[in-house]
Amino acid sequence: MIKINENYKKLQASYLFSDIAKRVAAFQQANPDKHIIRLGIGDVTRALPDACIKAFHAAIDEMANDATFHGYGPEQGYDFLRKAIAEGDFQSRGCNIEADEIFVSDGAKCDSGNFQEIFANDIRVAIPDPVYPVYVDTNVMAGRTGEAEAGRYTGLTYLEGTRENGFIPDLPSAPVDLIYLCFPNNPTGATATKEQLKQWVEYAKNNKALILFDAAYEAFVQDERLPRSIYEIEGADEVAVEFRSFSKNAGFTGTRCAYTVVPKACKAYTTSGEAVSIQDLWNRRHTTKFNSVSYPVQRAAEAVYSEEGRTQISELVGYYLNNAKFIRDQMEGLGYNCIGGENSPYIWIDAQGDSWDLFDMLLNKAGVVCTPGAGFGKCGEGYIRISAFNSFENVQDAMKRISGAL
Amino acid sequence: MIKINENYKKLQASYLFSDIAKRVAAFQQANPDKHIIRLGIGDVTRALPDACIKAFHAAIDEMANDATFHGYGPEQGYDFLRKAIAEGDFQSRGCNIEADEIFVSDGAKCDSGNFQEIFANDIRVAIPDPVYPVYVDTNVMAGRTGEAEAGRYTGLTYLEGTRENGFIPDLPSAPVDLIYLCFPNNPTGATATKEQLKQWVEYAKNNKALILFDAAYEAFVQDERLPRSIYEIEGADEVAVEFRSFSKNAGFTGTRCAYTVVPKACKAYTTSGEAVSIQDLWNRRHTTKFNSVSYPVQRAAEAVYSEEGRTQISELVGYYLNNAKFIRDQMEGLGYNCIGGENSPYIWIDAQGDSWDLFDMLLNKAGVVCTPGAGFGKCGEGYIRISAFNSFENVQDAMKRISGAL
Repeated sequence: MIKINENYKKLQASYLFSDIAKRVAAFQQANPDKHIIRLGIGDVTRALPDACIKAFHAAIDEMANDATFHGYGPEQGYDFLRKAIAEGDFQSRGCNIEADEIFVSDGAKCDSGNFQEIFANDIRVAIPDPVYPVYVDTNVMAGRTGEAEAGRYTGLTYLEGTRENGFIPDLPSAPVDLIYLCFPNNPTGATATKEQLKQWVEYAKNNKALILFDAAYEAFVQDERLPRSIYEIEGADEVAVEFRSFSKNAGFTGTRCAYTVVPKACKAYTTSGEAVSIQDLWNRRHTTKFNSVSYPVQRAAEAVYSEEGRTQISELVGYYLNNAKFIRDQMEGLGYNCIGGENSPYIWIDAQGDSWDLFDMLLNKAGVVCTPGAGFGKCGEGYIRISAFNSFENVQDAMKRISGAL
Repeated sequence: MIKINENYKKLQASYLFSDIAKRVAAFQQANPDKHIIRLGIGDVTRALPDACIKAFHAAIDEMANDATFHGYGPEQGYDFLRKAIAEGDFQSRGCNIEADEIFVSDGAKCDSGNFQEIFANDIRVAIPDPVYPVYVDTNVMAGRTGEAEAGRYTGLTYLEGTRENGFIPDLPSAPVDLIYLCFPNNPTGATATKEQLKQWVEYAKNNKALILFDAAYEAFVQDERLPRSIYEIEGADEVAVEFRSFSKNAGFTGTRCAYTVVPKACKAYTTSGEAVSIQDLWNRRHTTKFNSVSYPVQRAAEAVYSEEGRTQISELVGYYLNNAKFIRDQMEGLGYNCIGGENSPYIWIDAQGDSWDLFDMLLNKAGVVCTPGAGFGKCGEGYIRISAFNSFENVQDAMKRISGAL
């Protein structure tokens, strides 16, 4: 008899997005002529940069001729892209990351979901709250948790983000082995300083723990004092893996390209305490279960690092950041306390009450869709997230409507 | 302390391809002017069909404008592609497969490697020998085997392909729960008849087992009596999942698009015997750990089903099949017994001795690279695989050289 992985039964169905969809549909039905402005999900809306488009087309032309055709590429990604990444995103910022430490993939979601596979099942896992649900769900599927109780899984250590700590979690009080961190944060938009990340790196070193650092939103960091990579912290290459994506800087959410940095110095341990290279383990996993990213997509991603590409990416990120600033200023002007929106495309807003009450009010009185914070964990209750990924015209209109409604 | 998944330590490093690479390099060094012809790996060499190229370009033009830009798509794939697949590959052949049973992905390697995740760890797994190594390795990583002993993992049931059974394994003598099958077979090129597949479907029904059917090479089936999908067998939709790919029919090895058919009728069971929808489980896995395939790639794949696309695919497959026939005829003419090469791009050749001896002879005397069968499992010893994925000119040249050498 073919038996299921019973851990899947522990997964709590997330009613968040279906709940949102139902409420939005009901509103639209009642107000058929009203243009609803969606500032809920974190999906980009603007066209790919021209440099990427040109490289994309050129690569397809290569695929059209036997002589220049590309079949299977290296599972880890083409050297041209790995080198461009290592130089453009790390070496240029003083981080000692080499091309052979870059693993190109089709998404940070996949990588951040899959990475836990190479570790033992009885490790102690620490996950922020509020949080991107993939970190939690993939550990539940792997059997590292007990059942869910009151919205939290037994066996996980939750790193709480609160008003008091400015949504930068404190170090755990009991030891943990695998730590998920995400800065600039999704959903809160909070950013960690170098001093704060340094504490985590020291913690990891002292506890032989590993940090999985999700830096998918690093391009939005404008304050030069803030780190854009965990490798800006000395010694982080021994205790941290970093997830990056072209989704939010270059608008690749529908084009699909990302990468993970797995430094050679990173070690995990056998039960008998023998050190093993995490890069070797990940390389084995990656080459066995993945066949790399579409060649034309890798060429399009490479173009992000060209001079033209850099200028266009910077313009694109600036556009969304301008939206974010506008949203934050408006909401603050209306008397709401906000986090994020300065070095992040997300604005995390204290709802001054229930998440869903503010959600309903914004929808029903202004025709604007946001995301109730409760969907990101217990600590998200009492907050909403507004995303800056939309046209400035829509953002302006949304804020005008919200002002009018309040 | 961050501990590793100790199952990875059980994995046998495959020295096959590095061994091949070393021997080829040594030969090239000794014969710097000799043009080596590579008929080893199963990678296509010809350009993408023009219909795909056109659709690919057009989709990129959509990505270049805000108004037609595509961000995140449905994780399961766009409806336009799922519908084209369901109609073009199944309904048109009398198989009752619906669009919502198609899960688009970036590769059959990924899907065939990941699918085991949704099942319990203590299921009994049956895997053919010789075999595509991904099925074995991913079950080792998941902890479903013991250590390797004499080239085989304890705890797995090996389904032996031999000269005697024509490389169509017999049903297992002891009960199993999960069965991997691949027809037309990689590496042997053997094809199963409807009667043979029917036996497996009946076995699965009687034992509440599940078949993972890898049909990545179905496009090469020319004999109309042979099944191209397991769903041509009545009731297979209750006990089989099928992996398909655009890699070998449309030359997408470097473009990356594939899909998995997970019928609604497929069930797995809890320990207490309660039936659970496999589609629900896979959908949960797929949406949590995957973010779908690049939009332009999905548009290129859709073009495979256009009238122009079909004609071009058929020409492409015919080209490689012509190579395969030529190789098989030549090798048979030289006195070698062959399997495959008729409804498959692979020719599986009885080496009349050690795999590596024939490999070395073909390399050193003819400058032709093949794959020694021993790399695919114990039952591959004494065989070599020659791939038809190359230009006809190279294939002709290779065969002329081999004839001359023998």
